[in-house]
Amino acid sequence: MDRRSFLKTSALGGGAAAASTLAAPALAQGGRTLTMVTTWPRGLAGVWDSVERFANRITEMTDGALTVEPKAAGELVGAFESFDAVVSGQADIYHGVDYYWVGQHPAWAYFAAVPFGMTAAEMMTWYYADGGADLHKQLGEVFGIRPFLGGQTGAQGGGWFRNEVNSADDFNGLKFRMPGLGGEVLASMGASVQVLPGGEIYQALSTGALDATEWIGPWSDEKLGLQEVCDFYYPAGFHEAGPALSIGMNLEVFNSLTPAQQLMIETATAEGHQANYALFTASNGPALQRLQDGGTEVREFADDIWDAFGAGAMSVLGQYLEDDMFREIHESAQASMKASSGWLSRAESAYTRQRDRVLSSL
Amino acid sequence: MDRRSFLKTSALGGGAAAASTLAAPALAQGGRTLTMVTTWPRGLAGVWDSVERFANRITEMTDGALTVEPKAAGELVGAFESFDAVVSGQADIYHGVDYYWVGQHPAWAYFAAVPFGMTAAEMMTWYYADGGADLHKQLGEVFGIRPFLGGQTGAQGGGWFRNEVNSADDFNGLKFRMPGLGGEVLASMGASVQVLPGGEIYQALSTGALDATEWIGPWSDEKLGLQEVCDFYYPAGFHEAGPALSIGMNLEVFNSLTPAQQLMIETATAEGHQANYALFTASNGPALQRLQDGGTEVREFADDIWDAFGAGAMSVLGQYLEDDMFREIHESAQASMKASSGWLSRAESAYTRQRDRVLSSL
Repeated sequence: MDRRSFLKTSALGGGAAAASTLAAPALAQGGRTLTMVTTWPRGLAGVWDSVERFANRITEMTDGALTVEPKAAGELVGAFESFDAVVSGQADIYHGVDYYWVGQHPAWAYFAAVPFGMTAAEMMTWYYADGGADLHKQLGEVFGIRPFLGGQTGAQGGGWFRNEVNSADDFNGLKFRMPGLGGEVLASMGASVQVLPGGEIYQALSTGALDATEWIGPWSDEKLGLQEVCDFYYPAGFHEAGPALSIGMNLEVFNSLTPAQQLMIETATAEGHQANYALFTASNGPALQRLQDGGTEVREFADDIWDAFGAGAMSVLGQYLEDDMFREIHESAQASMKASSGWLSRAESAYTRQRDRVLSSL
Repeated sequence: MDRRSFLKTSALGGGAAAASTLAAPALAQGGRTLTMVTTWPRGLAGVWDSVERFANRITEMTDGALTVEPKAAGELVGAFESFDAVVSGQADIYHGVDYYWVGQHPAWAYFAAVPFGMTAAEMMTWYYADGGADLHKQLGEVFGIRPFLGGQTGAQGGGWFRNEVNSADDFNGLKFRMPGLGGEVLASMGASVQVLPGGEIYQALSTGALDATEWIGPWSDEKLGLQEVCDFYYPAGFHEAGPALSIGMNLEVFNSLTPAQQLMIETATAEGHQANYALFTASNGPALQRLQDGGTEVREFADDIWDAFGAGAMSVLGQYLEDDMFREIHESAQASMKASSGWLSRAESAYTRQRDRVLSSL
């Protein structure tokens, strides 16, 4: 690819006009520095690992020809300004979760998580072998972004509850902290949905200002001390079954790289997606064991609660189906999920259920 | 790392003496060609994709500084001579399944699949975040190999049966095609275990020389036409729940690469592991749907059959526990699997069971 092709804005999608101003550092050759803004506080367990893994790998694989310099939220721009900063060329790369950009287009949610959506395995399948990556690229072109999945937390826990919930009726009036589309589903069930930052959850639960919350998973939740203020934990949740993290690059900057560098970036993001899933799963497993050993009661939602989650999720997603691009992505993801799930549930899930039953009795 | 350090054989493990002769092409600098022997026929669906993906990616990421040249089984050496060819330096890299090398050391099986072992998600967790990769590296050093996981077929189907099996007793005398440790487990249940190459299975089933077989998964099995000679398919099996493919490099050759090239190889193998899992899952899902639409009866083994599989698996693995390295790897893998499975089953499997139930009723 011609290094000068990044000057031809005609190759960009319609919405990319804002991307025509590139920050000067992004164009310096030889020891070129790429600024990566992120939606994360520096050092946040799991996600900052993903930031550093990608940044270091690119620097090392290119032998220093490219240096990726990560910025925590607020260091260059605020967390939720990361997307605009990359579109405008103020920064070169963002690291975040694509559902933060649903205000730009609702379809971004599909490349992170939607209610009743894909697990990590199903997401890998759709994204890397069943059309997902291509749709991500098409959506990105509209904004002058070259996006990639770059991390994966695995299933987010269903939530922490001060009291057991036994039926869908128990969600009526429940003060539940859950942002995003998942919160909309809970609201459809009558919950009083709250959106609090992580640092305020513990206090709100301990005073009764909240009855329940979701956060991330056992590893992260334990660090927040949620087991001290809630007796009941529901590991399986409907809202984010396999949320991906994303790494998005200014499209002109990406096009200005050599083909080898472009491939290194694509390869490192995919490697990072898998490694991050492994890290979260390796950390969540022992954390769940510790929580149970410490007295947390682990529960599963009743069938009628899942019925209500499902009806709510379909209704929340349905409101965006008039948008052509949303519908195309939705239909691609749902078809892939249905096919892969048909195999995974009968092969992998059926196996692990039996294996775990047998091994626990030996 | 000093490029000349590959001359210092003292850095190698005890068993690496045979690796001191390097093939001349492997040492040519600039446009260096690395010969990759494989255990596969050229073009075999799924696995040959993994071979080409890795080879092309390394060539492109290094801008031609390294060219990986794949050889099908038999082109340079026979399939099962691939390991020895890389140890001796006759070839630079192998692409295969590490359980083929159990004759060299039984612990190689753990980096492919063992009976009652890990699913793909559990394998990713153990390998990439919970000690597995390090143990793989240690085992490789004994032989002068730098091994990496490089592909993943996902769960291998439980098998095709001419007649339904309803209890463990039905395996007594059953003529079942299954190689490896899984075959040993079936033998412990009284089965008459056969080992036939793929090309002979169809014929043996149609004449009644076989009663049952495992092969790979719906995608590959359909190509073999097994649905034409067996009415019953059991997707969940005990023998290979998440078998990995491996890419192993001659350790001296690996050490002679630049740090950037070494990291590209590590990164490309991991990217290939995930991409291959995605490819197999994306292909197995629709294939299973087609098989069911075509009249194949899909079944799940009864609990007492799983009990027998489990007891047999523990007994087969137990015979190797006197070997220190096998035991260390076994204990690491089992502990990781137990922890990650505790989380995955309660978060992901519980979720997909409910989601699929609800979506099918909407």
